[in-house]
Amino acid sequence: MAAQPFSGVLAPVLTPFNDDLTIADDLYVAHAKWLLKNGCSALAPFGTTSEANSLGIDERIATLEALTSAGVPAAKLMVGTGTCALPDTVRLTRHAVELGAGGVLLLPPFYYKGVSDEGIFRSIAAVIEGVIESVGCGDLRIYLYHFPAMAVVAYSTALMTRLAGAFPGIVVGTKDSSGDMENTMATHAALPGFGTFVGMETYLLENLRAGGAGCVTATANVNPAAIDALYRGWQGPDVDALDKSVCEYRLTVQDYPVIPAMKWLIADRLGEPRWRNVRPPLLAFSDAEGAALKGKIEALQ
Amino acid sequence: MAAQPFSGVLAPVLTPFNDDLTIADDLYVAHAKWLLKNGCSALAPFGTTSEANSLGIDERIATLEALTSAGVPAAKLMVGTGTCALPDTVRLTRHAVELGAGGVLLLPPFYYKGVSDEGIFRSIAAVIEGVIESVGCGDLRIYLYHFPAMAVVAYSTALMTRLAGAFPGIVVGTKDSSGDMENTMATHAALPGFGTFVGMETYLLENLRAGGAGCVTATANVNPAAIDALYRGWQGPDVDALDKSVCEYRLTVQDYPVIPAMKWLIADRLGEPRWRNVRPPLLAFSDAEGAALKGKIEALQ
Repeated sequence: MAAQPFSGVLAPVLTPFNDDLTIADDLYVAHAKWLLKNGCSALAPFGTTSEANSLGIDERIATLEALTSAGVPAAKLMVGTGTCALPDTVRLTRHAVELGAGGVLLLPPFYYKGVSDEGIFRSIAAVIEGVIESVGCGDLRIYLYHFPAMAVVAYSTALMTRLAGAFPGIVVGTKDSSGDMENTMATHAALPGFGTFVGMETYLLENLRAGGAGCVTATANVNPAAIDALYRGWQGPDVDALDKSVCEYRLTVQDYPVIPAMKWLIADRLGEPRWRNVRPPLLAFSDAEGAALKGKIEALQ
Repeated sequence: MAAQPFSGVLAPVLTPFNDDLTIADDLYVAHAKWLLKNGCSALAPFGTTSEANSLGIDERIATLEALTSAGVPAAKLMVGTGTCALPDTVRLTRHAVELGAGGVLLLPPFYYKGVSDEGIFRSIAAVIEGVIESVGCGDLRIYLYHFPAMAVVAYSTALMTRLAGAFPGIVVGTKDSSGDMENTMATHAALPGFGTFVGMETYLLENLRAGGAGCVTATANVNPAAIDALYRGWQGPDVDALDKSVCEYRLTVQDYPVIPAMKWLIADRLGEPRWRNVRPPLLAFSDAEGAALKGKIEALQ
């Protein structure tokens, strides 16, 4: 397996629900395949955008199996497996590796606040030990998921550096969703060659210029081709126009609650009302909100 | 079942671990029985102090069964069952009710931040629907666990009032761990007769004077008799001395990280080094810290 299994544009795959709020595997598989054909180099099932933390442990396992059984290559999956609890995180990570996932995207344990870097280090070390004792260390690739606005518990640059040093070939990258390019640049400075993804396409160009690997971005669920065009064209003559296009789209969508907004757009495109469903505590988009957003996006083009 | 199954002093039971960090059921059962003999009217397994959010879903189920199988009455358990994910919360809550638990202590879904009261309401409503469709509504008693410093997602007074009104006889109380007596008093004003517990014994007297039910407090794991004496004596002549005693003890312990500090004290009292173990991301107490704390506590007495 390559030391850096991923590059380019990844979508944290939205999770569609049936009307009874069970996962709609049929819509999920179709969406995953559409993303891979339309600009995503790989997928990140069970990120924040996936409502992953509203999914049960057993559900996550079953849906990942549905995805790979339907022919989505496991090697193209950076699977979100980080939970509050060590045994659940080990179980999900082990399962993803056993299925052949290209990597996992690991939130730190996020319930207990004010914890030390040492405590988080030991937690990640315990996950790694728990996984490699059953599956070996050859196939485990971890991306540290840094999202302080949502998880509150954060990976500091010093902690990431320590983890990458302690587990070379295993801790191979990060998704930096801090929205703070100073933090991303500190990661580049401390860890050249690390697989550093930003969490929004608005930072993609800057990340690529600094040696980054790409982006794992919510709006890749609805605008993957344009973001991929920026990724492919960042050293070409059209870079300014490509960058402007994706930034305008992103900034338009993120004026709204992003998950229900994107679900409404997909429901509208496919004529599939189930796509509007979200799990509580999120709330579904109204048609009025959807129509307003759709109008703004059409006006961009 | 009584409308208000609990009153008095409850301990969010510390979870002891073996050296391999599996749950030490033997120590757990012994500690639970000791608490019930030494001042706790009931127990709250799987609160924040229990490191509950570092325990796997399957582990929580197995340990609750170990506890009741060993003779701890299920009716005396207010079981923490709130997780980020609706299916896991339903599964844990259903299991607790099926075992005969006197009630459950329900964190709101706490990963997604900035969610609306409406979204949290729908989440709790979905938990209730998911549980009562299999076990009926006669035996489900929910205490809303308000702990904004840790969960970040909070139950507002307006939301609690709406939940209590929508689910009378089911949503019967709260544990208010805000540490903000203005908030607790707002709950008393909005919901007289609600089972309102405070999260620290330092607020117990004020809560009882306002009509509250008691406290569910971390330090009941190590100082239950004195806190129970305050509960029983709050209208008696010694109330000031009783209050001063428990407050001094509490304030001494909470100068330290409370969970590892209390575990060290129990390990020391029992001569059982396993009691020092904590799961990451928490860190165990050093003997130097333990000795310093023990000295301060002895100086109080």
